[in-house]
Amino acid sequence: MIYISRQEHFNAAHKLYNPNWSEEKNIEMFGPCANANWHGHNFEIIVTVKGHPDPETGFVVDLKRLSTLIRREITDKVDHKNLNLDVDFMKGKMASTEILTMEFWKILEPKVREITSDGVLHSIKVYETPRNFVEYFGE
Amino acid sequence: MIYISRQEHFNAAHKLYNPNWSEEKNIEMFGPCANANWHGHNFEIIVTVKGHPDPETGFVVDLKRLSTLIRREITDKVDHKNLNLDVDFMKGKMASTEILTMEFWKILEPKVREITSDGVLHSIKVYETPRNFVEYFGE
Amino acid sequence: MIYISRQEHFNAAHKLYNPNWSEEKNIEMFGPCANANWHGHNFEIIVTVKGHPDPETGFVVDLKRLSTLIRREITDKVDHKNLNLDVDFMKGKMASTEILTMEFWKILEPKVREITSDGVLHSIKVYETPRNFVEYFGE
Amino acid sequence: MIYISRQEHFNAAHKLYNPNWSEEKNIEMFGPCANANWHGHNFEIIVTVKGHPDPETGFVVDLKRLSTLIRREITDKVDHKNLNLDVDFMKGKMASTEILTMEFWKILEPKVREITSDGVLHSIKVYETPRNFVEYFGE
Amino acid sequence: MIYISRQEHFNAAHKLYNPNWSEEKNIEMFGPCANANWHGHNFEIIVTVKGHPDPETGFVVDLKRLSTLIRREITDKVDHKNLNLDVDFMKGKMASTEILTMEFWKILEPKVREITSDGVLHSIKVYETPRNFVEYFGE
Amino acid sequence: MIYISRQEHFNAAHKLYNPNWSEEKNIEMFGPCANANWHGHNFEIIVTVKGHPDPETGFVVDLKRLSTLIRREITDKVDHKNLNLDVDFMKGKMASTEILTMEFWKILEPKVREITSDGVLHSIKVYETPRNFVEYFGE
Repeated sequence: MIYISRQEHFNAAHKLYNPNWSEEKNIEMFGPCANANWHGHNFEIIVTVKGHPDPETGFVVDLKRLSTLIRREITDKVDHKNLNLDVDFMKGKMASTEILTMEFWKILEPKVREITSDGVLHSIKVYETPRNFVEYFGE
Repeated sequence: MIYISRQEHFNAAHKLYNPNWSEEKNIEMFGPCANANWHGHNFEIIVTVKGHPDPETGFVVDLKRLSTLIRREITDKVDHKNLNLDVDFMKGKMASTEILTMEFWKILEPKVREITSDGVLHSIKVYETPRNFVEYFGE
Repeated sequence: MIYISRQEHFNAAHKLYNPNWSEEKNIEMFGPCANANWHGHNFEIIVTVKGHPDPETGFVVDLKRLSTLIRREITDKVDHKNLNLDVDFMKGKMASTEILTMEFWKILEPKVREITSDGVLHSIKVYETPRNFVEYFGE
Repeated sequence: MIYISRQEHFNAAHKLYNPNWSEEKNIEMFGPCANANWHGHNFEIIVTVKGHPDPETGFVVDLKRLSTLIRREITDKVDHKNLNLDVDFMKGKMASTEILTMEFWKILEPKVREITSDGVLHSIKVYETPRNFVEYFGE
Repeated sequence: MIYISRQEHFNAAHKLYNPNWSEEKNIEMFGPCANANWHGHNFEIIVTVKGHPDPETGFVVDLKRLSTLIRREITDKVDHKNLNLDVDFMKGKMASTEILTMEFWKILEPKVREITSDGVLHSIKVYETPRNFVEYFGE
Repeated sequence: MIYISRQEHFNAAHKLYNPNWSEEKNIEMFGPCANANWHGHNFEIIVTVKGHPDPETGFVVDLKRLSTLIRREITDKVDHKNLNLDVDFMKGKMASTEILTMEFWKILEPKVREITSDGVLHSIKVYETPRNFVEYFGE
């Protein structure tokens, strides 16, 4: 079993706020992250697949195909977008990095199986800033 | 003459659009950067001061004071903000990195003189992403 | 279960030496790291908390509170300090990155519980240099 | 149990091709990575050893000795080399990062035991580019 | 006048050798860089354009167009290639980073003028490794 | 004329204090940087040489020789040392990054001429931390 990873990036706007709370409570809880007119980040996403190398290619997964998959399923949908307003799979959800990463997993987990022989999605890591990041292993 | 630099960062939303143009022309010119609901970045700002080291401190400028100045005058005003909507000195201007950097210069140039003996502002460099950046020398 | 991390930094002096050994044996074992007049590093500390996102905030832990905790409990005590001489919890211990990281765990593990609902400290990673680093999971 | 890592680097040429396939099939499968005249990378290798700190040194493993070991056993043999043509332990194997990392493991695993008291090799991580990387835990 | 930069990357093989010299002299002068079977790097190229921001766009140059230009004229021709064997504009030249950067200048200088109103190419910086790099200003 | 650079690193302890001042004034001026028991950094030094490429090698300067020069003349003298106590050329001087960089220039400027045909030292850049750095051009 070997673990192989591909990193992609996207730039998006978001804010943190709970629509069931008052503006005051949102600012108390989320501080400047609740700024009404949004703020944004250069996000990085690292997708790790685990499996055995195919004896004919030496690959667990073709990183070009994994890159294409991440772009088509994830970054094309979130890059230069507003995570709260423009992204179908985030509708009605908190736009925290935790929730975002878990939604990415739901999308990628079945699709990764289609591009490897015995590989499976192992983890998704999302950097909101170089100093703040989240990792999810699907359970 | 020696050059000393301090790097700070801020996270902001923006979009690129010219209010004199149609939505179509904005999208044609700016592509996804014109996304109506904004996008955002982790910006980095590097401020360089040139001068002679003070013989008693060995400093051209105290980097703690320079850091405090950049935070008070720049990053406190743009961090977790929308550059088009929330920032006084960007009102009515294109929110490109070029224009943003030139506005930062106007603010910092006179203030830097106040915290050094013979130093002057030499340049401001702003990274919009790790691969896209601007530098301005004041003329 | 999701894993969320915050990175902070500090600059400190230290040396590696065993007071039960001769100066010669210390130099034989630790080489330039045993330099009598100390040397130092820009350390980076990454603290990872695991738990479930709170449904109202989307957070496992508020990273602002985690950042404040790391600064108050760790970096305020070691930044611009001598790890061998100035730091209470390192007194009488080898100032290796391994021991330092394990001491950070003892301090942070109970405090992290206070700022999350169901989260617990998962790991602490400390970079002594960009090429030398340690990770500890508490056992 | 604590985990300690050392990062080293090497620059090498390689290509991806299966000698049992036609040139056309190699290009179809590997694209530009199959370029007949090779291409190359700045590789990074991170070796992680786990164990208990020695009470007299505070070390799981002396990172200077680990660095020397990685250089002697790995980077001296692959740096400024062609992975397909010049490297004994890659002869007859696909020069993918997966296979390369697994071969590094075979070489380092017994050697690491010789330079620690109770430590063992935990993982080897190899970056082919900053965005493409592999990790192997020996099984 | 403001300076705006775009960074792109490519992976290539090369070797340093002077065909007028003996193999021995090549190895004496270039050491492992003369390895007969090549070695390679992850190169980074930073292209800087200087000019005045267009009042309607806020741009000195559209970085998307600059990125497309660098890819079409440079990285498509050198990425996953052998700089000595596969690249027309390097034929018969030493494949040093200095010469490579000067050749990039000859190609890009006239093309940059076509995608800006008053901008001109200011410099090209090429990283062969994170620690070895060259910058050229055209004279 | 082309500019070529080599980056090296060293780890050192230092403190900022003026022996003509009281302890109180030192702490008022330098804050935690005046900590009596020292602190330290992972410094990076970038040395840039300008000149014309030699037609036979394609080199302005052989980066291996430049690296060896920087190590022999600079980093061997400051690595794992105390800049205030252990370094001859810093005796009696403020251990600020400005002064340190200017002293490095005095040492390297004549030595660089010896390893190039027409090259000269162009600049020395020293990072004290990733966010604080100095550059000197010799006048």
